[in-house]
Amino acid sequence: MATSVVSIISTRSQYARIKTVLTALQESPEIDLRLVITGGTLVHRFGNLTETIESDDLEIEKKIHTLIEGDEPVTQAKTTGIGLVEFATALDEIDPDVVLMTGDRYETMASTLAASYLNVPVIHLEGGELTGSIDDKVRHATTKLADYHCVSTGRAERIVDELGEPADRIYRTGCPSIDICQQIEADGRTNYDPQQEYGGVGSTVDVSDEYIVVQYHPLPTEYETNYEKARTVLDAYAALDVQAFWFWPNMDAGTDQVSKAIREFREQNGSKQVRFFINLDPHDYLTVVRNSSCMVGNSSVGIRECSFFGVPTVNIGDRQHARERGQNVIDVECDRDEIVTAIETQLRHGRYPKSDLYGDGTAADQIATLIPNLDISLKGPMTTTALDGVTEGELLNHE
Amino acid sequence: MATSVVSIISTRSQYARIKTVLTALQESPEIDLRLVITGGTLVHRFGNLTETIESDDLEIEKKIHTLIEGDEPVTQAKTTGIGLVEFATALDEIDPDVVLMTGDRYETMASTLAASYLNVPVIHLEGGELTGSIDDKVRHATTKLADYHCVSTGRAERIVDELGEPADRIYRTGCPSIDICQQIEADGRTNYDPQQEYGGVGSTVDVSDEYIVVQYHPLPTEYETNYEKARTVLDAYAALDVQAFWFWPNMDAGTDQVSKAIREFREQNGSKQVRFFINLDPHDYLTVVRNSSCMVGNSSVGIRECSFFGVPTVNIGDRQHARERGQNVIDVECDRDEIVTAIETQLRHGRYPKSDLYGDGTAADQIATLIPNLDISLKGPMTTTALDGVTEGELLNHE
Amino acid sequence: MATSVVSIISTRSQYARIKTVLTALQESPEIDLRLVITGGTLVHRFGNLTETIESDDLEIEKKIHTLIEGDEPVTQAKTTGIGLVEFATALDEIDPDVVLMTGDRYETMASTLAASYLNVPVIHLEGGELTGSIDDKVRHATTKLADYHCVSTGRAERIVDELGEPADRIYRTGCPSIDICQQIEADGRTNYDPQQEYGGVGSTVDVSDEYIVVQYHPLPTEYETNYEKARTVLDAYAALDVQAFWFWPNMDAGTDQVSKAIREFREQNGSKQVRFFINLDPHDYLTVVRNSSCMVGNSSVGIRECSFFGVPTVNIGDRQHARERGQNVIDVECDRDEIVTAIETQLRHGRYPKSDLYGDGTAADQIATLIPNLDISLKGPMTTTALDGVTEGELLNHE
Amino acid sequence: MATSVVSIISTRSQYARIKTVLTALQESPEIDLRLVITGGTLVHRFGNLTETIESDDLEIEKKIHTLIEGDEPVTQAKTTGIGLVEFATALDEIDPDVVLMTGDRYETMASTLAASYLNVPVIHLEGGELTGSIDDKVRHATTKLADYHCVSTGRAERIVDELGEPADRIYRTGCPSIDICQQIEADGRTNYDPQQEYGGVGSTVDVSDEYIVVQYHPLPTEYETNYEKARTVLDAYAALDVQAFWFWPNMDAGTDQVSKAIREFREQNGSKQVRFFINLDPHDYLTVVRNSSCMVGNSSVGIRECSFFGVPTVNIGDRQHARERGQNVIDVECDRDEIVTAIETQLRHGRYPKSDLYGDGTAADQIATLIPNLDISLKGPMTTTALDGVTEGELLNHE
Repeated sequence: MATSVVSIISTRSQYARIKTVLTALQESPEIDLRLVITGGTLVHRFGNLTETIESDDLEIEKKIHTLIEGDEPVTQAKTTGIGLVEFATALDEIDPDVVLMTGDRYETMASTLAASYLNVPVIHLEGGELTGSIDDKVRHATTKLADYHCVSTGRAERIVDELGEPADRIYRTGCPSIDICQQIEADGRTNYDPQQEYGGVGSTVDVSDEYIVVQYHPLPTEYETNYEKARTVLDAYAALDVQAFWFWPNMDAGTDQVSKAIREFREQNGSKQVRFFINLDPHDYLTVVRNSSCMVGNSSVGIRECSFFGVPTVNIGDRQHARERGQNVIDVECDRDEIVTAIETQLRHGRYPKSDLYGDGTAADQIATLIPNLDISLKGPMTTTALDGVTEGELLNHE
Repeated sequence: MATSVVSIISTRSQYARIKTVLTALQESPEIDLRLVITGGTLVHRFGNLTETIESDDLEIEKKIHTLIEGDEPVTQAKTTGIGLVEFATALDEIDPDVVLMTGDRYETMASTLAASYLNVPVIHLEGGELTGSIDDKVRHATTKLADYHCVSTGRAERIVDELGEPADRIYRTGCPSIDICQQIEADGRTNYDPQQEYGGVGSTVDVSDEYIVVQYHPLPTEYETNYEKARTVLDAYAALDVQAFWFWPNMDAGTDQVSKAIREFREQNGSKQVRFFINLDPHDYLTVVRNSSCMVGNSSVGIRECSFFGVPTVNIGDRQHARERGQNVIDVECDRDEIVTAIETQLRHGRYPKSDLYGDGTAADQIATLIPNLDISLKGPMTTTALDGVTEGELLNHE
Repeated sequence: MATSVVSIISTRSQYARIKTVLTALQESPEIDLRLVITGGTLVHRFGNLTETIESDDLEIEKKIHTLIEGDEPVTQAKTTGIGLVEFATALDEIDPDVVLMTGDRYETMASTLAASYLNVPVIHLEGGELTGSIDDKVRHATTKLADYHCVSTGRAERIVDELGEPADRIYRTGCPSIDICQQIEADGRTNYDPQQEYGGVGSTVDVSDEYIVVQYHPLPTEYETNYEKARTVLDAYAALDVQAFWFWPNMDAGTDQVSKAIREFREQNGSKQVRFFINLDPHDYLTVVRNSSCMVGNSSVGIRECSFFGVPTVNIGDRQHARERGQNVIDVECDRDEIVTAIETQLRHGRYPKSDLYGDGTAADQIATLIPNLDISLKGPMTTTALDGVTEGELLNHE
Repeated sequence: MATSVVSIISTRSQYARIKTVLTALQESPEIDLRLVITGGTLVHRFGNLTETIESDDLEIEKKIHTLIEGDEPVTQAKTTGIGLVEFATALDEIDPDVVLMTGDRYETMASTLAASYLNVPVIHLEGGELTGSIDDKVRHATTKLADYHCVSTGRAERIVDELGEPADRIYRTGCPSIDICQQIEADGRTNYDPQQEYGGVGSTVDVSDEYIVVQYHPLPTEYETNYEKARTVLDAYAALDVQAFWFWPNMDAGTDQVSKAIREFREQNGSKQVRFFINLDPHDYLTVVRNSSCMVGNSSVGIRECSFFGVPTVNIGDRQHARERGQNVIDVECDRDEIVTAIETQLRHGRYPKSDLYGDGTAADQIATLIPNLDISLKGPMTTTALDGVTEGELLNHE
C-alpha cells in the first residue's frame, strides 16, 4: 500500500524549495501525496499560489487560512497558533503515515508540533543550517521534534547529529531547490524574459543586456528599522546605472515597512531602470536569477542557489549571517556606499565556478526513493551524541 | 527598576514544582512577578488551582482557558494552538522582560514559542532531562527555543550543553520542587492527615499506620491501552493488604480511560482501604508522600522528590524511562504480579538514604538571585558545542 | 444534481432531535448529506456519539473538536469562537448548497454565522420558540441569520413571522423529534429495559413496575447555585418511594456542579432505587421516557415529546419558562416539597391524552421533500412584517 | 461607584461613528470607560488607529489582533471566530457592567455574542437600520442578542420594536456621527486642506476650488466583480473634469480587488486631479466631506452624514439599498454613464437643506446621561410585540 505523505506549504519560497520533491512524490506509485496550503500562499497580495501549484499538476487537498494581519511579532505567534489548531484537525482527518516539512518558518513549527501530538512521524528538510538569525531557534526546535532529517550540506549533517538526533535517521540529500537549478541549467533559457508572462510594474528591462536581481526581506527582530534599511538598499540602487528586477518582500513582520519604502521610491524616482514583480513561478524566478549578473539583498537564494549557478551575490546585513556560503558571496552592512561598491565589484568579476555546496540536483529523486523504504516510526529517546560522557551508571540507578 | 517576569502555569504539578520560585520572586523587591494560569489549572474536575494559588499569597494576573476536551492527541495539539494565540496577546499586553517556564508540557512549548516570536527571552527550568517518552521531543525543542536554562541534575546540564546551548547560559540550580521537600523535612509533620482538610472519597486511612501513595497517569502515546493498564495497577493493589491514598490522574490524553477504571474499581470493590483525592496543595501532597511507606505508579514524584526523601518507589512502565533515578526506585512492567512483588519488597526494605540528585533545596533562592543579575537578552546563533568539528572555513566562505 | 446539505451536530440531544431528518436526507437520491460532528458529541464523558451515529448508518464527513473545558460562561463563548473558525474552514472546503441547523445551542449560532459569511443559505429548525431563558437570545439571533425556517408549533410560526422573516420561507413542519415518538408508539416496546444494553450504574430498576425519569440540567445564567439546586432535586427524590432512571446533565456551564451533587448523593445514599445513565441512543431514551409514569426535571423532553406521548411531567424551575406546553405539565419551583407533591400528583393522575402541539410525526418526510424543491437562495432585505407601518416615503427618499 | 463600560472598536469608520460617545463617556465621572481595539484598527495598511485614538485623549485598555488575511468570505468568518475567543478572555478579565457596541460589522457580532455568553448586558447603537445588503442579517441578529438599543431614526426605532425588543429598552438618540457633523458646522473650517497634515499620494487638490469626495467599498457578496466595478467608478471619474479626494476602501472581502483597480488606474492615468488617502482622523475626514461639492461612491456617509450637511450624494449600486435617505441622494447603478450624469447633476444642483433624519447632534450627551441611570440588566424573554396575537392560553398550558 502506498505511503501517505502530507506536506504543508505556507509560502511561495517554501514551495519553490520543495517543488521538485512534491512532483517526484506525486509521480511515485508508492506514495500518496496530500498537499495542504496555508498562510501566505492563500493571500493575493503575496501572490496567491493556488494557480501556480495547479499548473504544476499538483493536487491541493486542503486550503487553510491562518495568516493574522498586523505586521508585528505578535501576529506571527498568533498565526502559528491558529495553524496549530487547524493543522491538528486536518492531520487528524487525513491520518497520514508521515508528514514532510521544510525549512524554518513558524508554520513549519506549527505543523511539526501538530504532527508530534498526533504521533505522526515528521520528515524535516533543511535542518541543521545556521543563519545567525532568530530562525535558528525555530529550525533547531523543529529538528528536535522531527523524526527524520534530509539535510543539504555536510555542516548541516554534523549539526543535526550533534543536536542528538540518531545518525541513522539523518540523510544528506542536498537541497531540493538545487534540483530546479540543475533543470534550469539544462533548459538553457539564457534570454528568458519574465515581463511578457508576468507583467509587473515599472520600466521595461532588456534581458539581452546586463541586469541585477534584488530581493530584500524585512527582519522580524528589528522591525522598527525595516523602513530605513529598505530605503538604504533602494538608495544604493539609485546610485548605480544598471537594470534590475526587484521582487516584493515576503510576509514576515516588517513587510509593510519594506513595501512602503518601495512605494515611496517609485513615487519619487518613477520607474528608473527597474521592474517590480510580486512573484514568479519558482522555475521562472530562478531562471531570472541564473541569467542575472548579480543577486543583491538578503534572500537565501543569493547564498544557496547562486552558489550552484555561480552567480555573484551581494549579501546585505545579518539575515543570512552564519549560513554556509561559497566563493560567490560578498557580505556587506546595510550601508549605501558599501552596497554600491560591492555590486560594482561583482559586476566586474562576473561568474564564479559552480559549487555543489547545497546539493547536486538529485534531492527529489533521493527523497522519493527514500520514503517508501523507511520503516516509518517515531524516534526513540535521545541516546546518541548528547549522551557522550554520560556513564552507564547515570542511565541506570544512581548510588 | 524591577525586572518583570511572566510565568505561565498550566497544571497543578507544574505549580507544585515551581511554587518556591514563584514565592521567592514575589518577595524579591528586584522582581515584578506576573502570574498567568491556564489549561487544567482552571478546570474544576482537575482541581481548580485558583484558590490554592491565592491562599499561597500569590497574585494571579490573568486566567486564560485553553483546554480543549476530548481525551485524544488531536485535542492536545489544539490546546497548544489556542494557548499560543492567547499567550501571544497576553505577553504583548504585559510586555515583560523575561518569561519563566518549567517542564515539558505542551503549554510550556506554546508559551515559549509565543515568547520567542515576541522577542522576549525565556528562562526554562528542568531542561535537559530524559524520560524516554514523547515528552523528550517537546522538552528538547523547548530548550532550543529558550535563552537561559536552570537545570536540575548534572546529566541535564551536560545534555543542554550538548544540545548546543551556550555554556554561560546554563545554571545548575537543582529542581525547585526539592525546595519544598527540604521545607517538609524541616516541618516534621510526620502524622499529617489530609482527610480532615481535603475530604476525598472512600475509606478512612489511619495515617499513624503504614500506607502507600498511588498515582498512575495515562500515556498519551498508548492511549488505547490506558484503561487496561490502570485496571492492572488497581488489581495489583487489590491483591495487597495495605492502606493507600490514591490520586486522580492528570489531564493528558487518556485520562478518561484511567478515571473510568478507577470508577469501576470503586463500584466493584467498594472503598477497601483506599481513599481517593483529586488534588492537594503541593506542600500537603508531598508531606503525604514523604510519610508514606512506598510511592507507586508512574509519576515523576517517585523518581525525583522521593530520591530526596528516601521514600521507596515502585515505578511502573515506560513513562519515566531513562529519567535519572536514585537507589530508591524499583522499576517494573505494568504487570500485576511484578507490581505486587515490588511493593512488598519496598515495604520490607523501608527508607533509603537521602540523595541530592535533583537538588539540595536552594533552587528558588538561586533563581531569585540570578534573574535580577542577568543581562537579559536573546541568545545568539548556536556557536559552541554543536560546532565542534566545524572548521573556520565552513563558517566563512567555502572554496 | 443532488442538493448538497451540511448538517453540524454538537450535542446528543441535538442529534436526537434531528435524527429522523438526517436519515430521510441520507435516503433521498436528491440530497447529498454531509454530516459534521463537533462539541460534546466527541467527548467521551458526555457519551461519545460517533458509534451511535455510525450504527444508525449515517456517514460522518468531519469530526471537529471545539469544546473548551472549564465549566464557566467564558468557555462557552470560546467554544463558539473556535467552532466558528473551524466550521468556516470546513464549509469552505465542502462548499455545500445549504446548511441545516437545529435549535439554540451556541454551536448552532457559530455554524449559522460561518454559513452566513460564506454566503451559504441556512435552513434553521426549531426557530420561533420561547423558553424564557438566555437561549431565546441565541435562538432569535439565529433566526435572523437563517434563510429558511422549519418550525414546530403555530406560535413559533407566528413569532418567526413577526421577527420579520419572509412568510414564504417559513414552513410549519412540526418538530422532527416527534417523528421518533411516532415510531416509538408504533414499535410498542412497552417493557423495554435499557439496563441490559447500556449498563449504567446503581440499583436495578424493574421496568415492568412503575418508574420515573429524571433529567436535570444546569442553568448557565445561575451557575453558582447549580450545585444547590441539583441537591434539592435529589433530596426530593430521596423522599419518594419510586424507581427512577436518572440521566447525567448536558455540558452547559454548571454541569460539573450538577455532577458533583449526583456523585455526593450516590456516596451518601448508595443506589436506593435509582439507576444512572450517561446517555442512550435517542430512540431508546425516548422509549424509556414513553414507558415512564412521570418525567421530572427541566429537560425540554418533558414539555415537547411528553406532550405527544401524554406522559405526565413535573417541570422544575425557569429553564423551560415560556415554552409552549400541553396539559401534561405541572410547573414547580426548585423546592423540595413542591417537587415531591407534584410528582405524587402526576403519579396518581396517570397518562394524559396525546397532543399534536409539537408535530404529528411527519417532519422528516416534509423536510426531505422540501429541500430538493427549494429554489435555494439567500434571503433578501427585511421587507415584510417589520416594515408594517413604514410608509413608502420612508423607504424612498425623505423630504 | 462608576459604571464600567467596555467598548470594542474594529474599524476606523466604526470609531468615527462612536467617537463623540467615547469622549463623553471618558469625561463622565459616573462612567469608567475601557476601550478595546481590534481588527483593522491595528493593521497599518488600513491606517493604524492607535495614534488617532491616543491623540483624541482616549486610553486604550487592550489591543487584540484578529484579522485573518485572505480577502475571501471564509476569512471574515474566521476573524469573527478568533475575535469571539479573545473577546471572551478580555471581557472575563475586565468584567464590565455593560458592553457598548455599534453597527453591523462581524466583530460587532463577535463582541455581542461574547458578552451574551458572559451574561454582560449589551447596549447596541445603530440597530434597526436597513441597507438591503447582507449586513442586515448581522445587524438584526445583533439586535436580538443586545439588551438596550440606541437607534438613529424613527424607522429604526419601529423596526427594533417590531423585532420584539422591549419598548422601554429602545432609545432614539440619533446617530453619534451626527454629533461630529454638528461640531464641524460649528467649527466652520470651510477651506480645510488635509494634504498638509496627511500627505496622501497623487495630484495636489486646490481646496478653495470645487472638489468631490469618492469612497467606493467592495461588496462581500459579489466579490468576484469588485475589480470591474471599481474600474467603472474610476472610469466615470476619468470622464469628468473635477478635482477629487479619493479614499481607500475598507477591509471587507474584496478590498484587494478595489485596491488593484486603484493602483492600475494610477499607473495608467498618473495623478490626474485626484489625491488618494488611506485615512484621516474622523473629524478631518467629515470636514473634507462637508466642504465637498459632491460625495460619490457607496459609503453610508453619503446617506447619513451628508443628509445632515446637505451635501449632494451620488450613491452607486446596492450597498446602501433600503437605507433611509434624504433629498440629497441620487441613486445610480454601477454604470459609467449613469455615474457621470448624476455627478454632473449634483454639481449643478449644489447644497440641499439640512435634515435631522439621522440625528440632531446630541447623541453622545444623551447616551452618556442614559448609561449611569440604567438599571442595567439582561433583558427578559421576548414578550411584547412579537407576541401580539399570541393568546394567554398559548403562553400557559395548552388544552
